[in-house]
Amino acid sequence: MKQLIVELGERSYPIMIGAGVLNQAAELLSKHLPGKQVMVVSNPNVAEQYGYLKPLLSQLVGKEVSYHLFPDGEEYKTQQQIDQLYAQLLQNKHSRNTSLIALGGGVVGDMTGYASACYQRGVNFIQVPTTLLSQVDSSVGGKTGINHPLGKNMIGAFKQPGLVLIDTQVLHSLPARELSAGLAEVVKYGLIYDAEFFAWLEQQAEALMAMDDQALAYAIERCCAIKAEVVAQDETEQGIRAWLNLGHTFGHAIEASMGYGTWLHGEAVAAGTVMALDLSVRLGMLPSEALERTKLLLQRMKLPIAGPAELSAEQYLPKMAVDKKNVDGNIRLVLLEQLGRACLRSAVDNELLLQVIRDNTGA
Amino acid sequence: MKQLIVELGERSYPIMIGAGVLNQAAELLSKHLPGKQVMVVSNPNVAEQYGYLKPLLSQLVGKEVSYHLFPDGEEYKTQQQIDQLYAQLLQNKHSRNTSLIALGGGVVGDMTGYASACYQRGVNFIQVPTTLLSQVDSSVGGKTGINHPLGKNMIGAFKQPGLVLIDTQVLHSLPARELSAGLAEVVKYGLIYDAEFFAWLEQQAEALMAMDDQALAYAIERCCAIKAEVVAQDETEQGIRAWLNLGHTFGHAIEASMGYGTWLHGEAVAAGTVMALDLSVRLGMLPSEALERTKLLLQRMKLPIAGPAELSAEQYLPKMAVDKKNVDGNIRLVLLEQLGRACLRSAVDNELLLQVIRDNTGA
Repeated sequence: MKQLIVELGERSYPIMIGAGVLNQAAELLSKHLPGKQVMVVSNPNVAEQYGYLKPLLSQLVGKEVSYHLFPDGEEYKTQQQIDQLYAQLLQNKHSRNTSLIALGGGVVGDMTGYASACYQRGVNFIQVPTTLLSQVDSSVGGKTGINHPLGKNMIGAFKQPGLVLIDTQVLHSLPARELSAGLAEVVKYGLIYDAEFFAWLEQQAEALMAMDDQALAYAIERCCAIKAEVVAQDETEQGIRAWLNLGHTFGHAIEASMGYGTWLHGEAVAAGTVMALDLSVRLGMLPSEALERTKLLLQRMKLPIAGPAELSAEQYLPKMAVDKKNVDGNIRLVLLEQLGRACLRSAVDNELLLQVIRDNTGA
Repeated sequence: MKQLIVELGERSYPIMIGAGVLNQAAELLSKHLPGKQVMVVSNPNVAEQYGYLKPLLSQLVGKEVSYHLFPDGEEYKTQQQIDQLYAQLLQNKHSRNTSLIALGGGVVGDMTGYASACYQRGVNFIQVPTTLLSQVDSSVGGKTGINHPLGKNMIGAFKQPGLVLIDTQVLHSLPARELSAGLAEVVKYGLIYDAEFFAWLEQQAEALMAMDDQALAYAIERCCAIKAEVVAQDETEQGIRAWLNLGHTFGHAIEASMGYGTWLHGEAVAAGTVMALDLSVRLGMLPSEALERTKLLLQRMKLPIAGPAELSAEQYLPKMAVDKKNVDGNIRLVLLEQLGRACLRSAVDNELLLQVIRDNTGA
């Protein structure tokens, strides 16, 4: 088992990574559960179809354990669903000393983290991410939240978990499309922070697509280490943490316009990343070679390198205008100044923006 | 203008207290507003009937100001109302750099604070409390939240404001019943923390009831100073901060059982305080003289000293069992070990608890 620490003073916490950790976690979990009560939150797919609920429950020795299943899918990342979890917690008389454990992908983690931030003004929270996307991205760093009908991830909290438990073995039950979507975020870490890691990904793309355990474990560890480093520098995203949103402002517009869940988050991010890099090239910040290498890598990972044909460039802008990175109404974008180094830019010319979106639309 | 500081490291903030500060706050407010966008949140009573919205708006010079009115009353302290505020913020494209200003009593403050904790994972927040209750209690210390159909204040966040602005002049438009309700919390500070202040209140009860400006200003200042001291020691209520809930566990049961808004919060706290003190006396912790002095003082302030006749003792317990102070299912109560010093007790005998409630029920 490999341990990384996210350094956040009194809110520091460990990330444990290994094959089969879900079946050997009793002692570790018990160290991170302050009270008797535990609520495991998951969805029917992860809990029952893949069968990860039982092994987790078997590790919660001597606790009063309940569980709650959210319906599967980004379209259920709503306040209504959160209210139902609150109702179950209140009916079961869960006190401020309870713990919520998120067992699932990014949606389950975001929702459970948000609920644990707000239930009784905050209770203990543990992440057990079961998708590549959530293992490398959303389970680390404390961003939690839900969607509002008027905007994705607009409501939420910074809620650091007490422990993140990553079992690489669970990825073997992941559908190929979700593996690819997770790799979009993996590529992002190379682009914004670590050119060497990007080059390693170019070498290992096929091994990763074939779910080679060693390759996956290294990629996850490297992504978590980068994320931990970035979050430790800037927990509430006043600066460098925004780099992690490379491709996300375009991506959010795609997800929101197509209806949440039609494009997977990672797919939208892949197309958005291409747009952000193309824009960086046209602004003279980035050599076009970096853009071409990225497109090639994403294609090998079976990811889209253009936005959906049915979405016009003009439809992006209103969605991008409500992005959380914006300041006083200006769209703020993460761009690349070199492979391995991102930067933030406001006030990009709208016409240029539209042109870049147009040129990267349709297959 | 008097300034107190709530010492919370990088989240420290000033409380400004004075007569007429609402009309001289332009400079002060502008120092505490990071961006151009401002959303003032209030209710129709405070905003229009009492007319406090216009003076506040006139102080927000050079800002893009919108306002949102919640319907008046504890029964509207719901997620649905919060969602409507989010919708207005999103429709007006308020960014992460916006500020929410709560102008009103405890309900407006709790809701606005909670919304500012969760909108885009947290935006700047300013409190302008307009009732005695909110000036001495809820506007200081960062507890925010809403009610869930299954429990009062069960959903919320610790969200410290950037500034609290207390204008004692606005109290002159306060209905007598709300003034009394606020005094219940004022008495609480004496009981839990400051016997000398309690004795001062015994001397000044009639002056306070007559809204004597000097007496009110001193009482508010003393309460805020005590609260600031307690919160600085224990922001997230791991220990001493729970003292501030003297009478509240009983009080919540009264409010929840009667339907939120039937009894004012302060009225329920007054009756609950008598119960907590009576229990302290019967447990041999407190001389009965302290109980009698408290009952007399509350009566002079036109506050109830017994729970509602229509509520049986047995109806209290299930509501008390979901109180946030409880740990692993045990009811935890704030009691007094002497006048001016509170303590926390778990595992009080249920029969004794029922007897105390019975003996302090009905007028």
